[in-house]
Amino acid sequence: MKTVSESRAFGGVQGVYSHPSALCDCDMTFGLFLPEQAEDGPVPLLWYLSGLTCTHQNAMDKSGAQRWAAEAGIGIVFPDTSPRGAGVADDAAFDLGQGAGFYVNATEDPWEPHFQMWDYITDELPDVLFSAFPLAEVAQGITGHSMGGHGALTIAMSFPGRFRSVSAFAPICNPTASDWGRKQFSAYLGKDESAWAAYDATLLMRKRGFDGPMLIDQGTADQFLDLLKPEALAEAMAARRQGGSFRMQKGYDHSYFFVSTFMEEHVAFHAAALHA
Amino acid sequence: MKTVSESRAFGGVQGVYSHPSALCDCDMTFGLFLPEQAEDGPVPLLWYLSGLTCTHQNAMDKSGAQRWAAEAGIGIVFPDTSPRGAGVADDAAFDLGQGAGFYVNATEDPWEPHFQMWDYITDELPDVLFSAFPLAEVAQGITGHSMGGHGALTIAMSFPGRFRSVSAFAPICNPTASDWGRKQFSAYLGKDESAWAAYDATLLMRKRGFDGPMLIDQGTADQFLDLLKPEALAEAMAARRQGGSFRMQKGYDHSYFFVSTFMEEHVAFHAAALHA
Repeated sequence: MKTVSESRAFGGVQGVYSHPSALCDCDMTFGLFLPEQAEDGPVPLLWYLSGLTCTHQNAMDKSGAQRWAAEAGIGIVFPDTSPRGAGVADDAAFDLGQGAGFYVNATEDPWEPHFQMWDYITDELPDVLFSAFPLAEVAQGITGHSMGGHGALTIAMSFPGRFRSVSAFAPICNPTASDWGRKQFSAYLGKDESAWAAYDATLLMRKRGFDGPMLIDQGTADQFLDLLKPEALAEAMAARRQGGSFRMQKGYDHSYFFVSTFMEEHVAFHAAALHA
Repeated sequence: MKTVSESRAFGGVQGVYSHPSALCDCDMTFGLFLPEQAEDGPVPLLWYLSGLTCTHQNAMDKSGAQRWAAEAGIGIVFPDTSPRGAGVADDAAFDLGQGAGFYVNATEDPWEPHFQMWDYITDELPDVLFSAFPLAEVAQGITGHSMGGHGALTIAMSFPGRFRSVSAFAPICNPTASDWGRKQFSAYLGKDESAWAAYDATLLMRKRGFDGPMLIDQGTADQFLDLLKPEALAEAMAARRQGGSFRMQKGYDHSYFFVSTFMEEHVAFHAAALHA
C-alpha cells in the first residue's frame, strides 16, 4: 500500500492511499479519515460510497463528513467508484465504465476482467483497511450518494450482521426499473434480468430488508427523481415494516450542497448505532 | 446578471451568478450563499477571497463555510480570483495570470486591460451585490486563504471602517519579500517597488493596522511556509499592538482540510463582530 497524501483535518488525519487490487486487476485509490481517537485504539468505521463520475476524492473534499466524524470518534472510508487506468475498459458515456462501477461484479466482456466492485468493496478493501488501520470491524455503518446510495443499501441488506446502520442520500432506489440501472446491468451483467435482482435495493427490501436502523434523505427538487425512483423504495420499506426514516427534503437538489446539509444528521445517526 | 445555478443548502441558497464586469472587461462569476434569514431582510456579508488556481467554486465546495454561515445568519460571497476568458492575458505558470490575480490593479502590459481585481473586489462587485441581494452593507467582514488571505488583509486595512472584522487562513503575509509576490508584482505593477507597498499586509500593518478584531490561522506543516512568511506579519502585529490572534496550528498543511477545520471558528469570529 502506498500513502498518496496525509493531511491533518479536524484533529485527525485525512489520508489518501493506493494499493494493488487483485480483484480489479489495477491499482485502487481510497480516502480514509481517522479521528484523533484512533491514536488510542480502533474506532468504528463508516463507509461512504460515491456516485457517478466521482473518484475517492469528491465526498472527501465536499461532503463535510470529517467534521462530524471527528466529533463522534468515527473513521470514514471513501472508496473509488470503479477500477481505473489505461488498461481498464471504459465508455464515452459518463454513466458507464470508469467512474460508474455501480457496485456490481461484472460477468460480461469487456467489463469482467476489472469491474468487480461488489467484491472489492465487501471483501478486498475491508481486508486492507482492517489489517492496516486502527478500525473496529465489529462497528461498521454504510452510507452513500446516488449510485453510492444504491451501493450502500444493497450491500447492507446482502451482508446481514456486518453493518449496524445504513443510510443513503438520494439513492438509485430501483435500478432494474430505471435507465440508471438497466443500461449498466445490461452491459455489466448481461441480458438475463434474473442476475440483476441482487443489485436492486427495492427488490432486496421486498425480499429481506435490513436488520437495523435505516435513514434515507431525498431532495424534492432533485433533477434526477425520475431515475432515482424514491417512491419504489419508500413503498417497499413501509410494506415490509422496515424500521427507518425516508425523508423528502423540500427544495433540495442532487448536489453536494444537499449531501453536506444533512451530513451532520447522518453521521450522528450512524454514531448512535456504532457506539451502542 | 445571469443566474448560473441555485441550490438549496443548509436551509438557504447557494447561488452562482455571472455578470459583465466593466473593470475587468469580461464576464465575472461569483458564488453567493444566502442563509434562510435573508428571506426576512438584509443579512451581514462575509467576503471569502480564494487562493492561487482557484475559481469562485473551490471554497464554495470545500470550505464548509455555509454550515456555519447558515447558523449565524450571514451571507458569504466567493468571488473569482482573476478575470478569465479567451481574450484575457494568461501565463503558463499556475501563479501568474488567470487564477492568480493577486488582488491588485495591474498597470503593466499585457495585464492592465483586464487584471483590475483590487477595484473589482472593492468597488464593482460590492455595487452588484448590494443592489441585487438582501445584504447589509453596514455589516461586512472579510477573510481568505493564501493569496486570498493576502487580499483580505490588505483590503481590510486599506478601507478603514468598511469591514468590522478580518481573518485569514495561511495568508501570503509579506509578498514584497517573497517569490509569491515579487514575481507577480513585477509583472502586474512593474519594476518600481514603491508601487508594491500598498499590496503587502506586513507593510500595511507596520503603517496603519486594522481598527477591529483580527484572526490569523497558519498550519505548522504548511508546505509553503517559506513563501507565506507568517513570522513577518506576526512580528508586525505584535509591534503595532494590533488587537487580534495569530495562531500557529500544529500539524496542519496548506489544504482545504486546514481551512475547513478552522472555518467554524472563523465564521463565529466574524459573526460576533457582524451582529454586534
